[in-house]
Amino acid sequence: MAGTTPQPPQSTSRTRSWWGWGWTDAHPDDAECTAIGALLPGTLSRPLPVPRVRDLAVAGPAVEPPPSLGHLVSADPGDRAAHAMGKAYRDVVRALRGRPGRIPDLVARPTDDQGVADLLDWAGERQVAVVPYGGGSSVSGGVEYRGDAHRAVLSLDLTAMGRVLEVDTAGRAARIQAGTLGPSLEDQLRPHGLTLRHFPQSFEFSTLGGWLATRAGGHYATGRTHIDDFVQSLRVVTPAGTSSSWRLPASGAGPSPDRLFLGSEGALGVITEAWVRLQERPRHKASAAVAFTDFQGALGAVRALAQSDLSPANCRLLDAGEAALSGAAHDGSSVLVLGFESADEPVAARLERAVALARSHGGRHEGTDGAGGREDGPDGDAAVRAWRSAFLRMPYLRDGLARMGAVAETFETAATWDRIPGLIDDVRREVGEAAVKATGFPATVNCRLTHVYPDGAAPYFTVLAAGRPGDEVAVWDDLKAVAGEVLHRHRATITHHHAVGRDHRPGYDRQRPEPFALALRAAKGALDPRGILNPGVLVD
Amino acid sequence: MAGTTPQPPQSTSRTRSWWGWGWTDAHPDDAECTAIGALLPGTLSRPLPVPRVRDLAVAGPAVEPPPSLGHLVSADPGDRAAHAMGKAYRDVVRALRGRPGRIPDLVARPTDDQGVADLLDWAGERQVAVVPYGGGSSVSGGVEYRGDAHRAVLSLDLTAMGRVLEVDTAGRAARIQAGTLGPSLEDQLRPHGLTLRHFPQSFEFSTLGGWLATRAGGHYATGRTHIDDFVQSLRVVTPAGTSSSWRLPASGAGPSPDRLFLGSEGALGVITEAWVRLQERPRHKASAAVAFTDFQGALGAVRALAQSDLSPANCRLLDAGEAALSGAAHDGSSVLVLGFESADEPVAARLERAVALARSHGGRHEGTDGAGGREDGPDGDAAVRAWRSAFLRMPYLRDGLARMGAVAETFETAATWDRIPGLIDDVRREVGEAAVKATGFPATVNCRLTHVYPDGAAPYFTVLAAGRPGDEVAVWDDLKAVAGEVLHRHRATITHHHAVGRDHRPGYDRQRPEPFALALRAAKGALDPRGILNPGVLVD
Repeated sequence: MAGTTPQPPQSTSRTRSWWGWGWTDAHPDDAECTAIGALLPGTLSRPLPVPRVRDLAVAGPAVEPPPSLGHLVSADPGDRAAHAMGKAYRDVVRALRGRPGRIPDLVARPTDDQGVADLLDWAGERQVAVVPYGGGSSVSGGVEYRGDAHRAVLSLDLTAMGRVLEVDTAGRAARIQAGTLGPSLEDQLRPHGLTLRHFPQSFEFSTLGGWLATRAGGHYATGRTHIDDFVQSLRVVTPAGTSSSWRLPASGAGPSPDRLFLGSEGALGVITEAWVRLQERPRHKASAAVAFTDFQGALGAVRALAQSDLSPANCRLLDAGEAALSGAAHDGSSVLVLGFESADEPVAARLERAVALARSHGGRHEGTDGAGGREDGPDGDAAVRAWRSAFLRMPYLRDGLARMGAVAETFETAATWDRIPGLIDDVRREVGEAAVKATGFPATVNCRLTHVYPDGAAPYFTVLAAGRPGDEVAVWDDLKAVAGEVLHRHRATITHHHAVGRDHRPGYDRQRPEPFALALRAAKGALDPRGILNPGVLVD
Repeated sequence: MAGTTPQPPQSTSRTRSWWGWGWTDAHPDDAECTAIGALLPGTLSRPLPVPRVRDLAVAGPAVEPPPSLGHLVSADPGDRAAHAMGKAYRDVVRALRGRPGRIPDLVARPTDDQGVADLLDWAGERQVAVVPYGGGSSVSGGVEYRGDAHRAVLSLDLTAMGRVLEVDTAGRAARIQAGTLGPSLEDQLRPHGLTLRHFPQSFEFSTLGGWLATRAGGHYATGRTHIDDFVQSLRVVTPAGTSSSWRLPASGAGPSPDRLFLGSEGALGVITEAWVRLQERPRHKASAAVAFTDFQGALGAVRALAQSDLSPANCRLLDAGEAALSGAAHDGSSVLVLGFESADEPVAARLERAVALARSHGGRHEGTDGAGGREDGPDGDAAVRAWRSAFLRMPYLRDGLARMGAVAETFETAATWDRIPGLIDDVRREVGEAAVKATGFPATVNCRLTHVYPDGAAPYFTVLAAGRPGDEVAVWDDLKAVAGEVLHRHRATITHHHAVGRDHRPGYDRQRPEPFALALRAAKGALDPRGILNPGVLVD
């Protein structure tokens, strides 16, 4: 029933940016930066230069690894600088301004559990902080050491553990190493006709281990989309030993061991592999975009869809600003992007029912793709296509805007339906007003619902504003603090899938019940008695 | 959006059995006991007498509560005896043989969180063990104090906290007190057109809090059926304070606080209320039974159904013995019981596709109900009806067999598909052989799959054997130990939904990863520093 997949992870000749999102060759050039900057009042007239590692004063490492581990460890300044931070707007700006976070002393790339365990032993003995690192796409300060309580900092890069080790075709599951990046994971599963079907926006630059450690939300809008639901078992190396749960379809034996490590963000142990549930690759697809003049009507449609049996794979609601920004609509309409997928049966009839439901809430569907009872051609619906392409380009454009001195960032939350309309209004108004006050220029605050549930939704906000030259991080931190207050007031979560990291600690500490905090601190003390694992994350 | 439901829990004039399952008036009488006993070789010729509390030597309580809590506390011997054990076969037999477990000194029925907190404070100061108690239907020693490390034992009965406090109709959720019994919970939700749709076999005699504390599996065979998935938030009173999580449709903020308390079996705190996700009441139903000559073919059909998009509400596979026992078939066939339900759209077409899929694996569907594209009438399919009625009567018949000196008990597990056939064969053979060896009479070991998943299934075993007069508990404990060894060898979980309690501790300790045990012990130490909460459960 099980087979092994011997092929190594795919390599590439493209170059990852040490300071910004993704591939260097996909970055907007100076002309494009200038052009997009001109769309936003109050930005610079020419872009900040692309930062160079050689302009940073990178000191030598404060520790040396023992010779027995030397082959796993790099002290190269470029490697170290690339592991200093994640890829939040505030990380990008700090790099642009020549003030990156604390640069780790060493970067280690273990190739197996024993290597991870040996590195943890070594770090524990020397009081070296260990920051687990997957694809480095954190947007919440999750991979950045702050403070000075440790003698040195080791970035523990898992990407040398990037293989699908075992596939159970009949049971639709695979044992996969935590350092496997999204595209390589799917490449390795493809010959088996299977897919994890977990496509967060960071897919290209994030790993299975990162998804598990941060409880990633995945791409699909309804149904099982959180990575949590796809876990059969986890292997986690902790300073107190290796935790290996049984591979089970379900169990009622005590609190779930896996659920303690899901979301532990490297603070309780290093996830090194998992058995995950897979699916057959979808054969049937249909998509459509439905426009709404009235955003409240659109919210009603989305709730009705989430509470139906239809299970759309995609059910994203873009408000008017977001629809305009992504090219999905230019007439002030909100746009609902609908998509259905199945490996099992045709989906055009489900799309048709969904479009009818949306129409009954005031939606307008004028196109024909998919919604006339037929499935998508290779290109799908035009508005859906515009949205998809903008979606993948978005982080690169954010970095281009950052080079123009703008504030350009996103944040997300989730709340029950009763709180959604007021929450969205308040974030738009209060963050918008704060941005005007901070910068003296009008600001844009857009919203989309990325995930919808029968009992609530996950609003995702985009903020575009002028910065204050040299002071962009402080401007953003202030806006984020305003946003945090609104979320707290509406009892909306501090993070739906961006993780807590260090940036969301204040909001997390307020959201988390205090007895649970006691339990978590106690668990941390038991598993990481020397306090070396991702210090500052989740608990102190 | 939210409304309150002021009506009190329903009361009843029927009497609960202190020693056996359910209502006294539903117990088989002496004649029926004798008749069913005669079907099993080696049983007694007449039933053991129904045990009486007055025949037990119930000593006075070792502690008295302070006057301020006296109104919540009962020292009545019958009340205390009824709270001494759960309702496993071994509990019933011990009562029949006049050797019940340790009888608690007091039974408390708090009416609010403050009462729970006060009782925990009082118990902590006096080193009194507190055993949280919902409907008392535990079949794994979950509500029974063992040992002598505490000065006295308090059974904390939550059923005076039995109300639906708040309903969010638009968001389909309700805030419900933990002591609410299944039927009362549904009665209180019915006027709102909503249902929790969580129907474990113990439904009538178990509470929401019990389902949450034990991670109950629910009745539905596929899709979201575990109570875990229906939790929006929990309120838990611990000796270290009250934990109250936010009501959220989803969150990625650290490890889930709720998941630590789900499955904590009263060892970390007392769950007092929860916001739970609800559904509209189903309007469309269709069911059918499909017979298989070949059990392996039936397993293939069930796996294909679980991996399809069909989502049957019921997809239970009865082996030949189980089908005969429940009256679903008498010709040596295995029977697959299929059912579909929806509040949203007709389901007859889905049933038709499911029956066709089962046929392609060798199934025979000869009836017409539902499978010809029409929905169920009020009675549904005849074989399905037979199964349903036997299912609800089963625990009463078990107690009747216990009165005839027989061994009659069930246990359950879950495993991935690759292990299912070997696991079922080995349990049947090894437990069957052990029963013959222990009793000198042939034994029956039947299997059904109660829940199926894309990646595995939950086999549920029924053991019927002669006992050794006066020694029935030892016989059963030996058989259960044999079963535990088989489950462990196949890496199948020690419990899919019966909870760990005290009976499954040895298997649980072997299944649980050791670093997780360290974390759980630390969490217990932080939340219950005096070790008064359900001692012996989960951790020591």
